[in-house]
Amino acid sequence: MADSIITLTTDFGTGSPFVAAMKGVILSINPAARIVDLSHAIPPFDLRHAAFFLAESLQYFPPNTLHVVVVDPEVGSDRSVLFVNVGGQRLLVPDNGCWALLAEGQSQPLRVIRVSEPRFFRPTVSATFHGRDIFAPVAAYLSLGVSPADLGPAVTHWRQLAWPTPTRQGTQVHGEVIFVDHFGNLITNIPASMLPGFPAGASRVIVPDVPSPHKVRTYADGLKRELVALISSNGLLEIAEVQGSAARRLGAGVGLPIHVESVEDRVTR
Amino acid sequence: MADSIITLTTDFGTGSPFVAAMKGVILSINPAARIVDLSHAIPPFDLRHAAFFLAESLQYFPPNTLHVVVVDPEVGSDRSVLFVNVGGQRLLVPDNGCWALLAEGQSQPLRVIRVSEPRFFRPTVSATFHGRDIFAPVAAYLSLGVSPADLGPAVTHWRQLAWPTPTRQGTQVHGEVIFVDHFGNLITNIPASMLPGFPAGASRVIVPDVPSPHKVRTYADGLKRELVALISSNGLLEIAEVQGSAARRLGAGVGLPIHVESVEDRVTR
Amino acid sequence: MADSIITLTTDFGTGSPFVAAMKGVILSINPAARIVDLSHAIPPFDLRHAAFFLAESLQYFPPNTLHVVVVDPEVGSDRSVLFVNVGGQRLLVPDNGCWALLAEGQSQPLRVIRVSEPRFFRPTVSATFHGRDIFAPVAAYLSLGVSPADLGPAVTHWRQLAWPTPTRQGTQVHGEVIFVDHFGNLITNIPASMLPGFPAGASRVIVPDVPSPHKVRTYADGLKRELVALISSNGLLEIAEVQGSAARRLGAGVGLPIHVESVEDRVTR
Repeated sequence: MADSIITLTTDFGTGSPFVAAMKGVILSINPAARIVDLSHAIPPFDLRHAAFFLAESLQYFPPNTLHVVVVDPEVGSDRSVLFVNVGGQRLLVPDNGCWALLAEGQSQPLRVIRVSEPRFFRPTVSATFHGRDIFAPVAAYLSLGVSPADLGPAVTHWRQLAWPTPTRQGTQVHGEVIFVDHFGNLITNIPASMLPGFPAGASRVIVPDVPSPHKVRTYADGLKRELVALISSNGLLEIAEVQGSAARRLGAGVGLPIHVESVEDRVTR
Repeated sequence: MADSIITLTTDFGTGSPFVAAMKGVILSINPAARIVDLSHAIPPFDLRHAAFFLAESLQYFPPNTLHVVVVDPEVGSDRSVLFVNVGGQRLLVPDNGCWALLAEGQSQPLRVIRVSEPRFFRPTVSATFHGRDIFAPVAAYLSLGVSPADLGPAVTHWRQLAWPTPTRQGTQVHGEVIFVDHFGNLITNIPASMLPGFPAGASRVIVPDVPSPHKVRTYADGLKRELVALISSNGLLEIAEVQGSAARRLGAGVGLPIHVESVEDRVTR
Repeated sequence: MADSIITLTTDFGTGSPFVAAMKGVILSINPAARIVDLSHAIPPFDLRHAAFFLAESLQYFPPNTLHVVVVDPEVGSDRSVLFVNVGGQRLLVPDNGCWALLAEGQSQPLRVIRVSEPRFFRPTVSATFHGRDIFAPVAAYLSLGVSPADLGPAVTHWRQLAWPTPTRQGTQVHGEVIFVDHFGNLITNIPASMLPGFPAGASRVIVPDVPSPHKVRTYADGLKRELVALISSNGLLEIAEVQGSAARRLGAGVGLPIHVESVEDRVTR
């Protein structure tokens, strides 16, 4: 237990002294903890980005890995800190819905605990840096075997995160870009399950102001610099420029509306 | 000892091959060393940023953790490499004063050793990359149990770092911004101890060219996008924009003068 | 074996969810693996940058360290994934020549295996994310002791990487900038072996459009903001601005032609 893994995800910035302070606090309580940096480059206060990031990555970790997430625009307010069991993982998160996507489609009941037992906090808790004063020490104590039940009461209500849902209207599926990766690939909220047969089949992907992108299976099926549409590795429709950046080319990012139209094409068949 | 922690702080840039080389050198000498990245994003050659970074973070580590700091504008000159015991931590640093803030207010005598024993260096020492050729191997040998006394002679003089000190003149405290974090929060050199009762009390924070910011306890006490003044988690006066960036809003950074005026306010009381 | 080191080098971006997913996959298969981040900031699809990065850093690691490199513009095509023994290190790389510089001047025969045994992959392999679905699990199984021979057949052909070679013409050596570091130092492909006696001797370094830089042994031998030429810590000619950025000053980067002219200087001698 003592050498268990603690992952860190924050919006503090890569190379932040605040991340370093959190590592120090964790290692002071459990010197054997194995800290794994996931990201400190979540855009500041961007809960949707955090939610997508967590959904994309935490599912691949060993069961019961402990993940500390500090994207916390409301630090110092009366928002709670939660311990959550979801998707076989353990999270310490601010109660702001950033773990919403992990909970989707979970059949197992979740366990959610409101972290409120100050004996697991640093002796003085600042008003602006709960990452150091609450999240880090609580995570370290959990890694030493403290039971989540000792952290505070179980709760049944928590904050939800508003999230755009794709819709179907007649022959069209309407969605939008929800994440832009480092390559400038635009990942939408339209799941492959709404696009049967994709990339085969008589459908057309509609991106505002540009010709319909070429539907492909993978980047390498397009020409260099071609705009393509494909199913991303997470099962969502993605718009990409082959060996380039779709975000830069289109001058667009999160929120860009994307549609897919089923084309009735009986004549030419 | 062999599996002890070695932290790294440099201005080499995140993802630098030079950091990777240092990790390789350390692990080649002590394969069990546990390397913890603190920051490789110290702005190039910025000793004050490094000093603030170290003061903010090293104090939280377990006693006697070994910290390697390579922010070294004078590499290849005759500046020394120092081993320093300060604040209960162990540092390997260039002799340029970057550890100055850690030494402030220390009652314990420091131990400072001039690292000069080449048998702990790489066989060939380059003129431009002491991080790889001196700092990394010396750190690895220390982690294996080499005594600091074997590294070279104890010294009693070292370089100081010029640092702006806040002053009080009549009803005003004069300070300046000394650090800008990733969120664009402006941290000043004015300690809470010079602002009794803050944020309560009849005082006014003066930021050049804008209305006096709202004095608050934490970000969440201000309105979204409001400019606020608060005591940071490190006990220093901070100017912030709630869920925004004060640095961007004010177009300002390190060096911006900040004043606090005690307001004699007998009439309205 | 189980607690062996696995390094990661990608162009996914610092703080990418895709890197986090790879770490999760590795730790799910081998919870004791010690993951060391080298860089996730290789410029997207930049094989030459990756080649230089690997040549600069992998040589310093303990023999037989396992290095996972995912800079892979052709993901999803029929390009192979290779296991390579080179320079005493073990690599998992896409077959795109990114490890070319490591192989230079190796007298030992290399071992190269085409990774093709799907039982070491994730059960479903996506078309766009082999980092998660092939590289990460294969690396984890290797760290558990799987023999490289079990991964697939040995091969004797692989892709080469075009690389600019310095040339000598009469009294001139012609080269070019091949790497720009975080400080803006311009590292060329001209080795010290082509510049006998440098920085001493009657030679002149020629940089387009600016006066010939001052030849020095190390940065500290130049004046602040002076443009200097020196032998870098890797044995290559480097153009630098002392405590500044030569890249910014010259508005130049990779590909900038640099010449060194031997000056016949009999008269003044």
